[in-house]
Amino acid sequence: MNNFEFYCPTKMVFGKGSIAKLSELIDKNKKILMVYGGGSIKKNGVYDQVQEALKGFNITEFSGIEPNPTYETCMKAVEIVKRENIDFLLAVGGGSVLDGTKFIAAVSKYEGEEPYDLASKELAVKDALPLGSVMTLPATGSEMNCASVISRLSTQEKFAMRSPKVYPQFSIIDPETTYSLPIGQVRNGIVDTFVHVMELYATYDVNTPLQDSWALGLIKTLIQEAPKVIKNNEDYDAKANICWCATCGLNYWLSVGAVQDWSTHRIGHELTAFYGLAHAQSLAIVLPRLWQERKKDKASKLAKLARVVFGCQELDDLKASDCAIENTENFFNSLGMPTKLSDYDINALEAAQRVKERFETRGTLLGEDLKITPQVVYEILKNC
Amino acid sequence: MNNFEFYCPTKMVFGKGSIAKLSELIDKNKKILMVYGGGSIKKNGVYDQVQEALKGFNITEFSGIEPNPTYETCMKAVEIVKRENIDFLLAVGGGSVLDGTKFIAAVSKYEGEEPYDLASKELAVKDALPLGSVMTLPATGSEMNCASVISRLSTQEKFAMRSPKVYPQFSIIDPETTYSLPIGQVRNGIVDTFVHVMELYATYDVNTPLQDSWALGLIKTLIQEAPKVIKNNEDYDAKANICWCATCGLNYWLSVGAVQDWSTHRIGHELTAFYGLAHAQSLAIVLPRLWQERKKDKASKLAKLARVVFGCQELDDLKASDCAIENTENFFNSLGMPTKLSDYDINALEAAQRVKERFETRGTLLGEDLKITPQVVYEILKNC
Repeated sequence: MNNFEFYCPTKMVFGKGSIAKLSELIDKNKKILMVYGGGSIKKNGVYDQVQEALKGFNITEFSGIEPNPTYETCMKAVEIVKRENIDFLLAVGGGSVLDGTKFIAAVSKYEGEEPYDLASKELAVKDALPLGSVMTLPATGSEMNCASVISRLSTQEKFAMRSPKVYPQFSIIDPETTYSLPIGQVRNGIVDTFVHVMELYATYDVNTPLQDSWALGLIKTLIQEAPKVIKNNEDYDAKANICWCATCGLNYWLSVGAVQDWSTHRIGHELTAFYGLAHAQSLAIVLPRLWQERKKDKASKLAKLARVVFGCQELDDLKASDCAIENTENFFNSLGMPTKLSDYDINALEAAQRVKERFETRGTLLGEDLKITPQVVYEILKNC
Repeated sequence: MNNFEFYCPTKMVFGKGSIAKLSELIDKNKKILMVYGGGSIKKNGVYDQVQEALKGFNITEFSGIEPNPTYETCMKAVEIVKRENIDFLLAVGGGSVLDGTKFIAAVSKYEGEEPYDLASKELAVKDALPLGSVMTLPATGSEMNCASVISRLSTQEKFAMRSPKVYPQFSIIDPETTYSLPIGQVRNGIVDTFVHVMELYATYDVNTPLQDSWALGLIKTLIQEAPKVIKNNEDYDAKANICWCATCGLNYWLSVGAVQDWSTHRIGHELTAFYGLAHAQSLAIVLPRLWQERKKDKASKLAKLARVVFGCQELDDLKASDCAIENTENFFNSLGMPTKLSDYDINALEAAQRVKERFETRGTLLGEDLKITPQVVYEILKNC
């Protein structure tokens, strides 16, 4: 096991009816900015539940955070924070709303010239406004971590900001609030969670059997519960399990002391930035081909995935890895999730060339061992 | 899954050489009380590492916290805290030292008449001194939770205090500091961890497949790594895995939204209070017989334990439960841990009678469903 430090002070409040607890979680003297997205929370009743719970609180609203939240939109919220002397941010919605809110929290206290540097140049966040969340979409795990992915329209870039300063003080998850999600978003959330866990697990082995068992236990649970929620969007128990899998998929409990990858995300982010694919759609395309390309270096963990989760009996690690790749792609497809660029009418060779050139310009090397050069990215994407 | 709230703000600092990070974790202006036990940290070099890391800090020392830390000893430390205006407590040692330190932290700020009420009457802890720990014994999980078990000599009582106010701000674990542990303590720690996980897992099923997979993944890891550390006290990787299992066995990550038991601990505490058995020794005696008595109510989870961990093929849940009980007792015995009261020359009938009478006097009902009356305790213990 590698040395590690772990810190996660977010209070999780989980279950039916838990939005009503909001008034115990925020100081009544705070000037709150309630941040949300395109208005789905007004249709599914979450907006009303929040307003009811916070009756008598001082709330300003900011709506319009988009999927793949943008720098440009967040900066409008920062203006409101400064103008209205906001001192608490409440994100209500999915991972995009929360990611946007984390960025708003950090930029509101940022004194440098170029706020996007907090993400693109990974500048240290020295201070941030306190924030909490009501999370209505199990997917990103943003509710219990300190990361935020922000896109910049003007430059077609997408980068992650990370800082302990932007942990939500609390996050509320009521699985019932996910009943009204379109099936496409349910599916995206499951794939997103799957790939998060694999970025944390499928690398090289540094002797972390507990962490491995947790990663594979989560994947098994996901595969077991996913068909239930695809079939019935209002199966409370299955929804609760999927929600908790999403949170635990990226709160890093299952990966302390292990080695992380994140190359599927980094390549996927470019596909989202260039072609507007949803985050999970890009991941489902990249992961199987990336594993195929990197099979030798990941064979030990991929073979364990194949044997523990997919019941593969193959003794040879490389052959078992093929079994893991095939079963993973089949699982995505079984949810109705495509795994080819051509499914979105995107030319693979063109995409490969564009992303390769971008990584060349930036001098980016990816993967747990930095073996993914821009040329390797090209090889991966041309087969997508 | 049941509704839940979860909060654990302790920063974990784990790995070789990590005691050197102490100076980054404590504010240099603090007046520190360094709390430790019988002096083993002076023999194994941990005392010197702490002193080296905190050179130039203002440190007062308090030694003499015993295994099963006592109210009486802790109160002596509270006097020093008040006299010397201590404002940070640093526990250096095992779970007993840390439990004692948590109690000292709470009592130092307690304004009521009877400090032991914080444990025996579960009074709310309104305030506590900040504390951190250097944990040198993988067992109790105290390094990442907010519980503290304190014995009172004058009344032969043992109760737990719980409060978010006594979470360690940080806990440092360097597996190398455990190399000098006597084999008996290594063994006790493994059994302690095993039983913690089972108190959190082996109850009735409320549909928590992720949590169950994590509990069983931890038990599998423990069974796999235990023989390695029993054989070689200086196997770093195995020690690191056992240490992390101990922490995760009782930081509640694997049990949110599930149902807890704790009756083995409650009965074991009485055996410790009456007969001076080590905590883990008492647990190893009680658990198998308690499961035998409660088999029908726990059959679903015990059968899952049997099948997933011990490879039992039995389809009938009650018969599979027997397999779980037998394999668990065999595992304890394989470590050299006795599982009978007679192994310690304690008369089972007498012990059963004494503990039963105590629970009768207090009106105690135990177990996840409160079905363990004093008479059931008698039935369990007379078979121990």
